[in-house]
Amino acid sequence: MSSVQDSVIFRNILSHPLTAEVWSDRTRTKYYLEFEAALAKAQARLSIIPQDAADAIANACSDVDNLIDWDLLRQQTESIGYPILGVVKQLVARVNKQSPAGEKWGEWSHWGATTQDLTDTASVLQIRDTLTMIEQFLDRIISALRDLSEKHKATPMAGRSNLQQAVPISAGFKFARLLATFLRHKDRLKELRQRVLVLEFGGAAGTLATLSPDGSDDVGLQCEAELAKELGLEVPDIPWHTERDRIAEFGFFCTLVTGTCAKFGLDLKLEMQTEVNEIREPYAPHRGSSSTMPQKRNPIGSVYITATAATVRQLSAALSESMVGDHERATGPWEIEWIVLPQISTLTSACLRHTAENLEGLEVDEDNMKRNLDITKGAIVSEAVMMGLGATLGRSRAHDLVYDLCRESNVSGKPLLDLLDGSQDIDLPRKELERLCSAQNYLGLSEKMTDRVLALCKER
Amino acid sequence: MSSVQDSVIFRNILSHPLTAEVWSDRTRTKYYLEFEAALAKAQARLSIIPQDAADAIANACSDVDNLIDWDLLRQQTESIGYPILGVVKQLVARVNKQSPAGEKWGEWSHWGATTQDLTDTASVLQIRDTLTMIEQFLDRIISALRDLSEKHKATPMAGRSNLQQAVPISAGFKFARLLATFLRHKDRLKELRQRVLVLEFGGAAGTLATLSPDGSDDVGLQCEAELAKELGLEVPDIPWHTERDRIAEFGFFCTLVTGTCAKFGLDLKLEMQTEVNEIREPYAPHRGSSSTMPQKRNPIGSVYITATAATVRQLSAALSESMVGDHERATGPWEIEWIVLPQISTLTSACLRHTAENLEGLEVDEDNMKRNLDITKGAIVSEAVMMGLGATLGRSRAHDLVYDLCRESNVSGKPLLDLLDGSQDIDLPRKELERLCSAQNYLGLSEKMTDRVLALCKER
Amino acid sequence: MSSVQDSVIFRNILSHPLTAEVWSDRTRTKYYLEFEAALAKAQARLSIIPQDAADAIANACSDVDNLIDWDLLRQQTESIGYPILGVVKQLVARVNKQSPAGEKWGEWSHWGATTQDLTDTASVLQIRDTLTMIEQFLDRIISALRDLSEKHKATPMAGRSNLQQAVPISAGFKFARLLATFLRHKDRLKELRQRVLVLEFGGAAGTLATLSPDGSDDVGLQCEAELAKELGLEVPDIPWHTERDRIAEFGFFCTLVTGTCAKFGLDLKLEMQTEVNEIREPYAPHRGSSSTMPQKRNPIGSVYITATAATVRQLSAALSESMVGDHERATGPWEIEWIVLPQISTLTSACLRHTAENLEGLEVDEDNMKRNLDITKGAIVSEAVMMGLGATLGRSRAHDLVYDLCRESNVSGKPLLDLLDGSQDIDLPRKELERLCSAQNYLGLSEKMTDRVLALCKER
Amino acid sequence: MSSVQDSVIFRNILSHPLTAEVWSDRTRTKYYLEFEAALAKAQARLSIIPQDAADAIANACSDVDNLIDWDLLRQQTESIGYPILGVVKQLVARVNKQSPAGEKWGEWSHWGATTQDLTDTASVLQIRDTLTMIEQFLDRIISALRDLSEKHKATPMAGRSNLQQAVPISAGFKFARLLATFLRHKDRLKELRQRVLVLEFGGAAGTLATLSPDGSDDVGLQCEAELAKELGLEVPDIPWHTERDRIAEFGFFCTLVTGTCAKFGLDLKLEMQTEVNEIREPYAPHRGSSSTMPQKRNPIGSVYITATAATVRQLSAALSESMVGDHERATGPWEIEWIVLPQISTLTSACLRHTAENLEGLEVDEDNMKRNLDITKGAIVSEAVMMGLGATLGRSRAHDLVYDLCRESNVSGKPLLDLLDGSQDIDLPRKELERLCSAQNYLGLSEKMTDRVLALCKER
Repeated sequence: MSSVQDSVIFRNILSHPLTAEVWSDRTRTKYYLEFEAALAKAQARLSIIPQDAADAIANACSDVDNLIDWDLLRQQTESIGYPILGVVKQLVARVNKQSPAGEKWGEWSHWGATTQDLTDTASVLQIRDTLTMIEQFLDRIISALRDLSEKHKATPMAGRSNLQQAVPISAGFKFARLLATFLRHKDRLKELRQRVLVLEFGGAAGTLATLSPDGSDDVGLQCEAELAKELGLEVPDIPWHTERDRIAEFGFFCTLVTGTCAKFGLDLKLEMQTEVNEIREPYAPHRGSSSTMPQKRNPIGSVYITATAATVRQLSAALSESMVGDHERATGPWEIEWIVLPQISTLTSACLRHTAENLEGLEVDEDNMKRNLDITKGAIVSEAVMMGLGATLGRSRAHDLVYDLCRESNVSGKPLLDLLDGSQDIDLPRKELERLCSAQNYLGLSEKMTDRVLALCKER
Repeated sequence: MSSVQDSVIFRNILSHPLTAEVWSDRTRTKYYLEFEAALAKAQARLSIIPQDAADAIANACSDVDNLIDWDLLRQQTESIGYPILGVVKQLVARVNKQSPAGEKWGEWSHWGATTQDLTDTASVLQIRDTLTMIEQFLDRIISALRDLSEKHKATPMAGRSNLQQAVPISAGFKFARLLATFLRHKDRLKELRQRVLVLEFGGAAGTLATLSPDGSDDVGLQCEAELAKELGLEVPDIPWHTERDRIAEFGFFCTLVTGTCAKFGLDLKLEMQTEVNEIREPYAPHRGSSSTMPQKRNPIGSVYITATAATVRQLSAALSESMVGDHERATGPWEIEWIVLPQISTLTSACLRHTAENLEGLEVDEDNMKRNLDITKGAIVSEAVMMGLGATLGRSRAHDLVYDLCRESNVSGKPLLDLLDGSQDIDLPRKELERLCSAQNYLGLSEKMTDRVLALCKER
Repeated sequence: MSSVQDSVIFRNILSHPLTAEVWSDRTRTKYYLEFEAALAKAQARLSIIPQDAADAIANACSDVDNLIDWDLLRQQTESIGYPILGVVKQLVARVNKQSPAGEKWGEWSHWGATTQDLTDTASVLQIRDTLTMIEQFLDRIISALRDLSEKHKATPMAGRSNLQQAVPISAGFKFARLLATFLRHKDRLKELRQRVLVLEFGGAAGTLATLSPDGSDDVGLQCEAELAKELGLEVPDIPWHTERDRIAEFGFFCTLVTGTCAKFGLDLKLEMQTEVNEIREPYAPHRGSSSTMPQKRNPIGSVYITATAATVRQLSAALSESMVGDHERATGPWEIEWIVLPQISTLTSACLRHTAENLEGLEVDEDNMKRNLDITKGAIVSEAVMMGLGATLGRSRAHDLVYDLCRESNVSGKPLLDLLDGSQDIDLPRKELERLCSAQNYLGLSEKMTDRVLALCKER
Repeated sequence: MSSVQDSVIFRNILSHPLTAEVWSDRTRTKYYLEFEAALAKAQARLSIIPQDAADAIANACSDVDNLIDWDLLRQQTESIGYPILGVVKQLVARVNKQSPAGEKWGEWSHWGATTQDLTDTASVLQIRDTLTMIEQFLDRIISALRDLSEKHKATPMAGRSNLQQAVPISAGFKFARLLATFLRHKDRLKELRQRVLVLEFGGAAGTLATLSPDGSDDVGLQCEAELAKELGLEVPDIPWHTERDRIAEFGFFCTLVTGTCAKFGLDLKLEMQTEVNEIREPYAPHRGSSSTMPQKRNPIGSVYITATAATVRQLSAALSESMVGDHERATGPWEIEWIVLPQISTLTSACLRHTAENLEGLEVDEDNMKRNLDITKGAIVSEAVMMGLGATLGRSRAHDLVYDLCRESNVSGKPLLDLLDGSQDIDLPRKELERLCSAQNYLGLSEKMTDRVLALCKER
């Protein structure tokens, strides 16, 4: 076991079984065979290869488990350095064996294709499946955030800047900011799909010279179009064996998405602190608990969100280095993708699942939010008080007065409200002062801004 | 001097004067003042502040050089930790001083805004200007690549995979692949602009509570809309003080663009090797030369492309870490952006300029391309020969025959053509064999694929 | 201005003036000239060049300000791509001009050296100076931590795991862990110095062929030894133009050091939270303050520690990429160092200064530490209570009992002590229960472990 | 399958079976149990727990396969978030079951330890094993490089700077530079081992309060010393749960080592180019070959060296982020290590194995080296010629003359030797000119410098 993601113990925590399946030997090889089958069909249709051969090839390719001898493939791969030739050899042998006497239909396999055509196209199909899973998580997350934003749009809590209480906000406003971000990720997903879900097909140096040697016909281009149609992918403008912006962009997309998850995870860890305790991960017996310290409730989901996102971040930097590939087929940079793509995909899935699960069962403790709003004894709304008094006292005098009373409150521990009420400079009735000192009355546009984001959800 | 980009000696090599100007103290502060002026105008229009005050503020803000005492600002920044309060203090003092007796118009400055509102909006304006420059370089690069693709679409050269000669391609095909990539970057630029060119305006915790304390009116939202209009930016769905996906995406865009430049730089370095020498950087007297080694011609532009792109790559990883910001105002992650954004922008500009200049004066040496195609004595077109013979000999026999002759050619040094001509198994006329052995006749769809990309240029 | 580190406003916050001076154009060029002077002296001593020439060269090299025309050097650098040839040309011209009639002593400059010899050796000297500054900061930090550890070795505070209160520790124990880490950094510094402070001198491809063309004599080696002696550097085993492990190791050292600073900065940010408020950055009027929110005290030093350390981290990854240099002189990877070294050095200095200043004026609030220890109403010492009761009740029964009482305390808000005292299952006197419930009595080996680290300080 | 390193197909290429075994579930759990056994033994010796209990615990811990129910452990881990509690529960249950009636010896397991004590100590033991394997590879590499340096210390080849032929070097000199670097890595390994091979043992917050509640005795420290002795690890100055410099340093060490491998891999890729072809990877039938392109010989080992090293580089940046852990037990940063450590170790092993295998079978083609030295028709030794002529013509006149002849040679294609011989300005005999134009006679100190490095091998 080289990666903890494949650990029997951790695989459901640091990876995700469905995404892991997408990046398995079996699925990857299955996609190689889907390419071979689609190629044969396309070429039979264009009379490049015999229809019988195409049928036999497609038939053999339809059952990866039956076709592939994995240990032989391992040996072939270790000997040659790449697995494609081994897969093709096994395919050819099988189809030849099943051909009528005198025929070797298997020889028509892989016609005009090169190793990287299959590898890249399989990667694109695996990315397609990964994006489908990512989208499902995004939808769950968006749905949960929509509910939380709606429900708590007027729930007051302390807004915090530089980890200091600043002014009140509503909890819904906090969720709505995240919600708006995940909606942007959905936009990015759409743009990315259009760019990344393309076929790779070019032969040895990308020119499809085996199919159209001197370029006088365009059989190669027709074949490319038919192949793309078979596989449900777009035709690229030109082969992209060493132009890897699409792949790097996929990595960056994963980084952006998990980056937002990590921001949520950070806030949640901070919210769950013993001293704060306003928002908590879903409760499950024993989850994040300690046998000897009953007061503890560890933010275990957030822990894994943090760690997976941090690793994705660096892996996508490796992916961006793989953009710097030499000439027509890169010597090393390409193989970085082989290592990074499966891992970035599975880590992203794990990160998203922890995020979705945390959001779906999130505990919002309105009482503790209120309690914490009182910690500063009113100073958190001093801005509101100052502006309220400014109408009668003048802004500048109001500022100085409130500032002094805040300091006095801080030192003496007396609530700002009492000090205001007792001040000779102020003659507002206590009722009015209470109104000014209430966090609930200083949420600003928290609710309206939240509604603006909620309206966006419906639009899309 | 902390950064070599600000070196008197290197600043035009590792940075770009125009982009450096965009990220200077002066421009950044100018944009702070533009924000203050636009805010005052917007608020006067909405009767939040007096029109006279707004006029005075806007007037003072119109001349950064006249207004700002830089050394004082440095002291204020070092004392407080952020420059905004210092700028506002200087602005207030100036406007107050210029107010009629009994008035302190300056007090109406910065009404309802917070430090990060100005800082982020200024960054967005600086990013806007940077994107303008990047676009200009992209256009130059695209134009140069279009010409090169067009001109060399049928110029044969060795295609190389794993740094080995593989099969022939056309030089135009090589350029067209890059061209298609830069066209994709233009698409990304468009999408990015729509997402990133947005206002930041929310006050202390983003709720605009100073303007609309209890949210019963929507003066804050009106003010936001007017302010955005004044500055030519979009209104965001919700403030984004700690949701930094837009900024990270800008970093990733720079990484993608410079990544493609680095791929070009790598190929060019390889092409300029003494032993290859097919494509060269523009010649300028002494450029990349050595006084004692007259045979040398260093790929100096490519060197700087490589180094700047590699640094951008890592800096954008730092930018993605800055996504993980706490609560409503981040404590440290945000400041990563302050360090990284100027540098990533200026390095990207430098990288793009070297790329554009290299492409605009690129030397394509068709003779050396031909010479190198001959190095393998015909083996580079063995695939073509094999397929040509396959029609008469059968594919399998043709393969074995050609494979053996290639090995013989490799050992004996005799051209494949001669060996084919002398083979008893082959009875094609030498003329026909010559045709098969000509790289020119095995460019495949190089030209048609190049045309497909060139057609895209016109569409956009 | 390309880097915010060179901003008039931010240069003392995100850089450090002394380290910036080390990496300035002036110092770098001064070190080029020191190399030339030392080379001339060494070669005169070995009779490779005339003593008069050496004297003239050394004399001209002794005053960089007088010798170098900066604007001309910029032009030369932009034309050639590297500054060394320009510096040498200016030196040669000056010395020639000052030579007696018929002599051109300047021609003896730079004898046998290559561009990279000077550049690398200058970098090593700049790294030497940077390490000196880093060491001074380390010493200040170690000294401050020693005092804090000593003073607070028995001051109880909450130990926190997963951001939850766990069991008590002493504040000194917290500081001592940091102290031990910085002592390890001093060890690393020593090891690093031995490896990195070496000369680079090899000529065009490292073989010193200009001095010892066919290797039959060892004048080149003698010259290398003399040159190293002049410059106070070690002689390397072999030139290291493209073996850059020493340089990458310097980057990693900076990352390790700033990583520890960032750990401290993170803890401090968390400690300064409104809801925690146990340890604070030094107070200075207005520092980290807000004009409208008097309750705020931003952890401004920690903010910059966090941001600078995060950037250093990524820049050192760029530096590790620069290890992959081609052949005898790298084509691009080397230039990554030019960009990264100055920045990594100045960012590290800034990070260390904020760390030192924070530690030297750190406010430790013992009262708030006590207050926070009471938040869990005794649950934080439940482990102690359980073990105390275990002696009489049996460990297993004690565990269940205490666990239940902790939960009851959590729900009812009653202190654990009262619940223990009221429990029918326990017949210990309240005094004894008070002792068990006191955090002060459950600091474990905090003090002894702190002393163990303090003893280490004396040893070294 | 989440990681391609665990692919059936790629596991021997992108990982290494022995290192993978070190980081497997089984070994990690085995080390957890070794910790428990050692702890029990140490505590029995100190009379903290009964000897019978210790014996029973040690016995159960000695057979991981027999003890652990893996699927149950997976469930426990998913429920709790960490595996340690599950392992302890299984251990306790087993030992209790095997205890005599009335005894529950299992309860004495894990006495005073915390989850992270076991996890970290197991990681240290896994790192220890990894370092052993790394050292074995380093020794193989050093041995191969020593042979290559010795054998080729006088074999002339082109030295290349900026990918241009510069002046001749010997092939041995090239190998010796690498050799010296790997010797430095051995030094680093030694230093690292002393720092990283330390025990972690501190209990909940590091103070060992369960063993020495109020610190009045030092049983905890005695237990720590005994435990360390049992495990063959050093006692740390103080627990290091959130001071992770040692772990990050291990990552950096792997980056330095693989960085040097990648430099070698890059040079080898470049050397194997069709147009250069001087040094080649070991030949094995089909390895790196292509069925249709018989001229190809892919540098397949170098490809994987490049890709694994690039990934290690970024993963170690993730590891350096994990240094920034909060308070006494980090909330997320720590878990980055769980993901990164296994992978960085196995990738490093794979990278080192490809490097060792490449070096051990390396093909050095002296003929092609000679052929390439002739490409510039003598210009590569123009420096030698210039200096040789300088003795009679004067240095300045010699320079201009040689420079002009080199250009003429470059344009006309005539060898420099012939042009020199035909020049009216030169009256040296052709024999002498031949000597000057011979690369063999301009290897400088290649051999002596190589010897200096070879001597180092013996010293250590």
